[in-house]
Amino acid sequence: MPVQPETLSVVKDQLVALLGDRCSSAQAVRDQHSKGESWHEPIAPDLVCFARSTEEVSEIVKVCAAHKVPVVPFAAGTSLEGHVHAVEGGVCIDLNEMNQILAVNTEDLDCVVQPGVRRKQLNEFLRDTGLFFPIDPGADASIGGMASTRASGTNAVRYGTIRENVLNLTVVRPDGQIIKTGGRAKKSAAGYDLTKLYVGSEGTLGIITEVTLRLYGIPEAMSAATVSFPDIGSAVQAVILTIQAGIPVARIELADEVQIDAINKYSNMTLPVQPSLFLEFHGSETGVEEQARQVGEICKDFGAEDFQWTTRTEERNKLWEARHNAAYAALALRPGSSLWATDVCVPISRLADCIMETKKDLETSNLIAPIVGHVGDGNFHLAFVLDKDNPAELEEAEQINGRLIDRALAMDGTCTGEHGIGLGKKKYLRREVGSAFDVMVAVKQALDPDNIMNPGKII
Amino acid sequence: MPVQPETLSVVKDQLVALLGDRCSSAQAVRDQHSKGESWHEPIAPDLVCFARSTEEVSEIVKVCAAHKVPVVPFAAGTSLEGHVHAVEGGVCIDLNEMNQILAVNTEDLDCVVQPGVRRKQLNEFLRDTGLFFPIDPGADASIGGMASTRASGTNAVRYGTIRENVLNLTVVRPDGQIIKTGGRAKKSAAGYDLTKLYVGSEGTLGIITEVTLRLYGIPEAMSAATVSFPDIGSAVQAVILTIQAGIPVARIELADEVQIDAINKYSNMTLPVQPSLFLEFHGSETGVEEQARQVGEICKDFGAEDFQWTTRTEERNKLWEARHNAAYAALALRPGSSLWATDVCVPISRLADCIMETKKDLETSNLIAPIVGHVGDGNFHLAFVLDKDNPAELEEAEQINGRLIDRALAMDGTCTGEHGIGLGKKKYLRREVGSAFDVMVAVKQALDPDNIMNPGKII
Repeated sequence: MPVQPETLSVVKDQLVALLGDRCSSAQAVRDQHSKGESWHEPIAPDLVCFARSTEEVSEIVKVCAAHKVPVVPFAAGTSLEGHVHAVEGGVCIDLNEMNQILAVNTEDLDCVVQPGVRRKQLNEFLRDTGLFFPIDPGADASIGGMASTRASGTNAVRYGTIRENVLNLTVVRPDGQIIKTGGRAKKSAAGYDLTKLYVGSEGTLGIITEVTLRLYGIPEAMSAATVSFPDIGSAVQAVILTIQAGIPVARIELADEVQIDAINKYSNMTLPVQPSLFLEFHGSETGVEEQARQVGEICKDFGAEDFQWTTRTEERNKLWEARHNAAYAALALRPGSSLWATDVCVPISRLADCIMETKKDLETSNLIAPIVGHVGDGNFHLAFVLDKDNPAELEEAEQINGRLIDRALAMDGTCTGEHGIGLGKKKYLRREVGSAFDVMVAVKQALDPDNIMNPGKII
Repeated sequence: MPVQPETLSVVKDQLVALLGDRCSSAQAVRDQHSKGESWHEPIAPDLVCFARSTEEVSEIVKVCAAHKVPVVPFAAGTSLEGHVHAVEGGVCIDLNEMNQILAVNTEDLDCVVQPGVRRKQLNEFLRDTGLFFPIDPGADASIGGMASTRASGTNAVRYGTIRENVLNLTVVRPDGQIIKTGGRAKKSAAGYDLTKLYVGSEGTLGIITEVTLRLYGIPEAMSAATVSFPDIGSAVQAVILTIQAGIPVARIELADEVQIDAINKYSNMTLPVQPSLFLEFHGSETGVEEQARQVGEICKDFGAEDFQWTTRTEERNKLWEARHNAAYAALALRPGSSLWATDVCVPISRLADCIMETKKDLETSNLIAPIVGHVGDGNFHLAFVLDKDNPAELEEAEQINGRLIDRALAMDGTCTGEHGIGLGKKKYLRREVGSAFDVMVAVKQALDPDNIMNPGKII
C-alpha cells in the first residue's frame, strides 16, 4: 500500500528540517534508488535521504516510525533479487556518504567500517597494513549491503561467507533505537546470536550502520591457475575431489563453455571454449606449489590437458578481472539485454547432477544463460541474458529458474546460496524452509511490528 | 514459580500414558538431572522423560505446553553455568537415548546425528571414513548440548566453533511444532539464519533433536608440540605473533604454572612448572613441519628454550588427554572441592593484559584458580577449586569473576567465549550487550510466549 500524500508531506517536512537538501524527492534521485543490477522492474521510493551518521539514520527512522512509513536502505545498488525496490514507497536511506573506515586493528585482524564502504575501497585502504578482506562477490558492493544479503563469492570456499566474517554490527531498530550486536572477541557464547540474525536479514529487521569485520594476513604466496575440461561433468568431478581431499584452495570457480566464449570476447582472452576452472592458491611458497601440483594431478585424471599455473600478479589479476566481469561479458553477448541472475547451492556430491540437468533443461530453450559458479561450495549461477520487455522471455526464464530451484531443493540444497531472497525468490522461501517460515514471521513481527523495515522482502 | 501439585499430577499421568516407565519421578533420577559439572547448587526437575525420537519430544512438549509446565533438555550433563538446572521445576527431557548417527555423507563432508550423540562416539564412528569432527570442548559432551551452548574448545582456532559447523537443526518448538532450520548446502542466503539463532540459545527457544554437522578430512599429517616460557606474558606474546603471522595452527593452548603443576601431578607428567603452550599442527607432511618450525622460532624469540615437537600419535594423545583432564587435575589439587569454571574472550591484542591483570588479582586471593586457555581465539578460563559450602569462598570467587568480566568487557570482549550464560552469567549479559538485550527479550517472547522452554536461563 503506497504512503498517503498527506502523510508523505508531513514526513518530508520533518526530514527536510533534519537534513536540508540531503532529503530529496527529485524524480531523478528517486529513480537512481529504484533498482539493483538485475531485471526486476524499478520501483522508486517517495523520498531519498542521504545519511551521514548512525544518529542521523536513527532520527530518520524515528520520523518514519512515527508515521508508519516504509524505510529502505540503499548503498551500491548492486543487489540481484530486487532488495532495494521500494514496493510500498516510503523513504530510501542512502548510506553512500557513510563510507568511512573507522578503525583498523592490525594486531587483532579486524576493522570497523561504515556501511557505505565498498569492498575494493577497503582493500585499497588495507594494502599497506599487510591485511586484506577476502569476501568478494564480484561486484564492488558495499559492506553494509553484503552483510544485509549474506553475500559471499569467490573466496568463500577458503574464508567463509560474510556471515563468518562479521564480528559485530551497529543496527538502528525500527523505533530508532541503536544497538550493538557483538564485540570484537573472535567468539562468544553470550546469549542469542544477534549478529547472525541481522546478517542476511535484508534490511527487514533494522538498518546496519556499522560493521566490524575479520581481516586476514595477505598470504606469503598467491598463485592462480586455469584448466579446461572435455565436459562439465569432468570439471565438477575434479572440484569435488579437490574439496574432499581437503586441499585448501582459496578460489575454485567454474565457467561453462558459453561463459568462456563470452569472457573471451569481452575480456579479449583466448581461453579454450570448454568448461573451465579458474583457481587461486594462498599459502607459503611451498604450500601454494604443493596445492597446485595436487590439483593439477586431479584435473589430469579427469581429462584436463592444459593446467596452467602462474605466480605472476599481473596474469592473476587479469584472470580475476575477467572472472568478475563474467556477468557484463554475458550481457555483451546480446547488446541492450538485461540480466536475470539466479543462484542455487547444493551439497557438493549433487553438484555435477544439478549442473548437468540444468544444462539439459537449457538446451531446449532459446535463452542465452551462461553458467558460472563458486563450485567449491556447491554454489552456481545461471545468468539469463534477456529482453525484459518480452513477457515470453521472462516467462521462460521464470520456468527454468523454478525448475532449477526445485532441483536444488530436491537435492537438499537452497534456493539461493548468496544472492538472497529479496523480491525474486520470495515464493520459493516457504517451499524451502517449510514450517520454519512461521519462525521467520514471528521474528519479523516481534522486531518490526509495524512492518516498516524494507517491507515486502523475505517475508 | 514451582509447578502446582495438581498440574504436575495431570501432566505426569499424560506423560506416563505416552512413555510408560520412561517417565520417572524417582528422586534418584531427578537428582541425576539436577546439575552440570560446575559448582551451582543442584535444582531437580519434577519429572524426567527419556525420549527416543523427535516425535516423542514433540509429544512431551505438547503435554507441557498445554499446562504451561517448564521443559528442560538434558544429555551429557557437562555444562558449566547451570544450564540444566530446573529452576522452576517441570519436566526434564533426557535425550541420551537419542544417540544414533543417522547419516554420514562422506562425499559432502557432513553427517546427521541425534542430540544425545557424544563427540567421542562420533569420532570413533567416523574413524574408518577418513573424516573427523573437530569441535572439542574437552568434556565428552553431547552434540545437542554443544549446539545449545555454542561450544567450541581447543580446535576452534583452526576449524571455528560449533556455530560455524552446524548446517541444519531439527528443533521442537514450544508448541510441539517440528521445524528444520536449514539444509545440507554449505551456505545459504535464504531468509533469517535460524540455525544460528537456535545454536547457543540454551534450550530457551526450542529443543534440538537433530543436528547436521560439517566434517573434515583427517589431515595427512598431525603433530604436536609443547613449549614453556619464563613468564605468562611471553607465552601470550608468542601466541599473538603466531596468529598474526597467519600460521594455521590447529590448536594453541595456554596453561599457567599452577595448571601445569596440577597436570603433572594428575597425569603423571614432568612438564617444566612454567607457563606453557600445547600446540597441534594439521596439514601435509611438509606443511606441519613448516608450521612447527615457524612457531618454534617465534617461541624462541620470546625466551622459550624447550620447544619439543612430536609426530608420534601416542605422545600426541597423551598430551591432549592431559590437557583435557586439566579441570579434573585442578580439582585433584584439593580433594573434595568443587569446580567453578569461568571463561572470557577478548581481542587477542588485549589477551596478555587481560591474563596478567587477572593473575595479579588472584595473587591477593587464597583461592586456587589455574588458568588455561584457547588463547589463539583470545579465550581463557579460570577454574576456581573451592569448597562450595563455604560462603566466603563463593563470595571471593564471585568477586574475582566479576572483576574478570569487567576487565574483558572493557577490552571489547565477552563475558563468555564458550561456556554460555546459563544461570551463572545472567547478570553480566545485559551489561555486555546493552540495549540489544531488548532484542533478545523480544525474540524469546515471540518464540516462547509462555516461557516454558528452560525458563530462567539467558533472559
